[in-house]
Amino acid sequence: MEKVENIVVIGGVAAGPKVAAKVRRQDPTANITLLTEEEYLSYSICNLPYFIGDIVKNPKELLVREPAYFKNIFNIDTLLCHRAIKIDTAKKEVKVLDLETQKEKSFPYDKLILATGASPIRPPIKGIEFQNIFTLRTIPDAIKIKSAAEQAQRAVVVGGGLIGLEVAENLAKRGLETTVIEKLDQILPPLDRDMALLVEKHIKAKGVDVSTSDGVESFEGKRDGKVYIVNTGKRKISAELVVMSVGVRPNVQLAKEAGIELGTTGAIKVNERMETTVPDVYAAGDCAETINLVTGKTAWIPLATTAAKQGRVAAINATGGYDSFKGVVGTLVVRVFDLNVAKAGLSEKEALREGFKPETTIAVGPDKSLDSKEIMVKLIADKTSGCLLGAQIIGQGNVDKRIDVVATALNFGATVEQLSKLDLAYAPQYGTAMDPLITSANVLRNKLAGETVGISAEQVKAKLERREDFILLDVRSPREYQEARIEGCRHIHIYELAKKTGELDSQKEVVTYCGSGLRAALACRILKNANFKDVKYMDGSLKAWPYELKV
Amino acid sequence: MEKVENIVVIGGVAAGPKVAAKVRRQDPTANITLLTEEEYLSYSICNLPYFIGDIVKNPKELLVREPAYFKNIFNIDTLLCHRAIKIDTAKKEVKVLDLETQKEKSFPYDKLILATGASPIRPPIKGIEFQNIFTLRTIPDAIKIKSAAEQAQRAVVVGGGLIGLEVAENLAKRGLETTVIEKLDQILPPLDRDMALLVEKHIKAKGVDVSTSDGVESFEGKRDGKVYIVNTGKRKISAELVVMSVGVRPNVQLAKEAGIELGTTGAIKVNERMETTVPDVYAAGDCAETINLVTGKTAWIPLATTAAKQGRVAAINATGGYDSFKGVVGTLVVRVFDLNVAKAGLSEKEALREGFKPETTIAVGPDKSLDSKEIMVKLIADKTSGCLLGAQIIGQGNVDKRIDVVATALNFGATVEQLSKLDLAYAPQYGTAMDPLITSANVLRNKLAGETVGISAEQVKAKLERREDFILLDVRSPREYQEARIEGCRHIHIYELAKKTGELDSQKEVVTYCGSGLRAALACRILKNANFKDVKYMDGSLKAWPYELKV
Repeated sequence: MEKVENIVVIGGVAAGPKVAAKVRRQDPTANITLLTEEEYLSYSICNLPYFIGDIVKNPKELLVREPAYFKNIFNIDTLLCHRAIKIDTAKKEVKVLDLETQKEKSFPYDKLILATGASPIRPPIKGIEFQNIFTLRTIPDAIKIKSAAEQAQRAVVVGGGLIGLEVAENLAKRGLETTVIEKLDQILPPLDRDMALLVEKHIKAKGVDVSTSDGVESFEGKRDGKVYIVNTGKRKISAELVVMSVGVRPNVQLAKEAGIELGTTGAIKVNERMETTVPDVYAAGDCAETINLVTGKTAWIPLATTAAKQGRVAAINATGGYDSFKGVVGTLVVRVFDLNVAKAGLSEKEALREGFKPETTIAVGPDKSLDSKEIMVKLIADKTSGCLLGAQIIGQGNVDKRIDVVATALNFGATVEQLSKLDLAYAPQYGTAMDPLITSANVLRNKLAGETVGISAEQVKAKLERREDFILLDVRSPREYQEARIEGCRHIHIYELAKKTGELDSQKEVVTYCGSGLRAALACRILKNANFKDVKYMDGSLKAWPYELKV
Repeated sequence: MEKVENIVVIGGVAAGPKVAAKVRRQDPTANITLLTEEEYLSYSICNLPYFIGDIVKNPKELLVREPAYFKNIFNIDTLLCHRAIKIDTAKKEVKVLDLETQKEKSFPYDKLILATGASPIRPPIKGIEFQNIFTLRTIPDAIKIKSAAEQAQRAVVVGGGLIGLEVAENLAKRGLETTVIEKLDQILPPLDRDMALLVEKHIKAKGVDVSTSDGVESFEGKRDGKVYIVNTGKRKISAELVVMSVGVRPNVQLAKEAGIELGTTGAIKVNERMETTVPDVYAAGDCAETINLVTGKTAWIPLATTAAKQGRVAAINATGGYDSFKGVVGTLVVRVFDLNVAKAGLSEKEALREGFKPETTIAVGPDKSLDSKEIMVKLIADKTSGCLLGAQIIGQGNVDKRIDVVATALNFGATVEQLSKLDLAYAPQYGTAMDPLITSANVLRNKLAGETVGISAEQVKAKLERREDFILLDVRSPREYQEARIEGCRHIHIYELAKKTGELDSQKEVVTYCGSGLRAALACRILKNANFKDVKYMDGSLKAWPYELKV
């Protein structure tokens, strides 16, 4: 094993500190230098929205580790406010600008690890230079936004992704009248539209204005240099505070200039040992690519969890060991007011885009036996292989547990059948004897076997709008039906259905619905037994219906 | 496919109703009869302790489905208070005693599914016939215990397993002075002793008396026929209420008499299609065996979750379809006051018994970034293969999520390395960027690679008691050390250790400890670099130390 004298790590958040600490554990004597252009080291980016919302009160609580910790425990020199400006891969040297003294320094390296992270996109919209238009990525960003929020009454968040929604919620909870503007026709782009619509409904009910298929055309300010108006294609919104949350880009300029190859995603190309295309240079975290294990394709999914794992792998390989990072399955979770929203693997639209033949299902169930809350599980599987492709789970109940099970199952290429038979833990405080995830998998197995056919709320809505000739059948109890129903439905209580099939035209397409899909699916079986030729049930039924009901 | 006319299901809880409902969904026309000797159908056994504790107020809340549901939705005849007394496998007929009329009836079957469940063991202890000595399995049992508890001041629970502890907690919360008597040297027999001791400490702190390595020798009553004294080998305990919770046995008498083969575990032998050794007779749920997927061996682990899954498989196969149940990984979870306790796979002692070479680790961490509580993860792996064998997780934080991930990983034969790289969901409300499970897996990988060596609290305690010549080194801060420490330790703060290694004899065995193990492991690396020949760190350190500290 070659002797490593100098190890330089560029990047002070997530992957960088992880690399440095692990390098020291592997190599007791190397000189380790951890550089960051920021004034803070090793903090939690994911907690920043909650600092704005005062859930995290003090910036110090955002810090994971302080420089003294690295020095005292690991004998690692951490240099804050030091910007790496050039990598000379031939001389194996990093040129660094000390932002305080404005002096340049050089650091030789035997091994170099790039953990340069990602930066928020700040699109060149007219008026973007006005004050109080922020992006959120660093502690100073968060401090500025919080301080501006203290004086503002109205805020606009541009971008309805995960961070955008977290920021919007925290601003709204501070009492600001908050609007989210999203270019796409749905918030939370990684989700399918059907699930995203339900989240949108929830956010609106909490008092946050959401405008989809809408983009900012310009900002208007006043003489004081501050923003006052956000112009979208649709309207003018007054706001004294704007947070741009339209995505991030990997920080790759330094690598690119050094001749380190970028991948198709625009992030730094690495192999599973986190090696870049240049010898002795590694990359980890948000600046690096990875593999989506569900598709087998290169992906760029910048997340703190991945950064930590990649950092460890890079550190082990950079110190003469062997480790590999095979990839991710695209797991995410976000809390949106009272709603937990999670995803792993592919959405239905992503599965289609990737050339799979997806079958999907939506099932609703209680998350526990005692003191339960509801969750809705959408599963996506490949019709050809029967393999699970992904899941989206939302609800006030516990979704993170189920998504972690899905993520683990996806990691091992599980079939839907395997998912349906997992030995998940049960006691009344934690779950139900048949977990909603297990039930969903069984419902999906029925579909994959051709025993039942589902149809989405969106498709039913479209059929109604096109005035198609089909029977929409509400099979709930008379009381439920009286309370609220989909306009244009017929009603036969499931208890009566077997006797009353003669009242319906068995040659017509029938779509059944109930509260959450269970009785609707049973109704399909009853109709099939009565020789109806085309019966479907509405997936998730009224629980998954994001539109108006007739009351 | 043969025509099935009559399907008989024996058993009204968990597997039985599941079988009947699924049979109907598969076969619209068969005559389905669901028999139970009980007066209640389809209720949650797992909720019974919480009915005693008034968390579940009404017996009706215990019911999952009522007979009318089965009749109206599924056209299934449910016969309550009907005891199956004989199976004639030649004539394909079940003889049944109507417990209300005391008349016998016969039910022909094409397919028979046994879901006869299990019954609590009532050991032949002297005085067991006194009143107010109960077992808990059915709704009437729970009603009787609750009613007795209303008049009692003191209770004894015999058996410190899952149900025993749940009952003890609920009695204690009702205000009864409660003692748990356990024959083994630990409560919660599926757990390793180190973890069980921590749970025991917690229960005692909540005011429940726990006596291990202790058994009931006799009960003493008074002329009113009621129990008043519980005599154990160690003492006499006054009690007006005793709950026997020393385990359950599968209800196999009916099957055995019919010539249906039992397995080595004493439960009904089945293949993965849930077929017994007699054609057209299936068994599912607590009366049937299964496979432990970690050992590949036959096992009997009666749980509601398994019953539901086996029931579905039996129903599909009994109606001409094909499905299989491969087995379980031994997942369990139980809430003990404020502590969540979970296990999947093998314990360390079970791994040893099964001939594995286990390596273990205990790691402690916060369950979330925001509003976190602690969890302690013990992982067990096979040194030879690097495969995960099991986990035990306890703490006030979320353990069920992590155990479900472990259960899923075990299902796919995961290695510890694979566990360490799972793409688990993270946002500050749900976890940490490096989940305690991921961290534990990494710590265990370090051990498996021979980079670090651990030692258990129990072993350290034994070394101290044997007055072995070794250095027990506390590496916490001076303030922590002053507050409380293990008697007989030396103290060098980790910040000073690299400079002060000369103060210690490098030829002696050194065991380091800190708060939870992290700094202790780092200290080992420092000592190893200083050429100490034998350094170990205490797994879980003080968090895993169930004994007294010097204050």
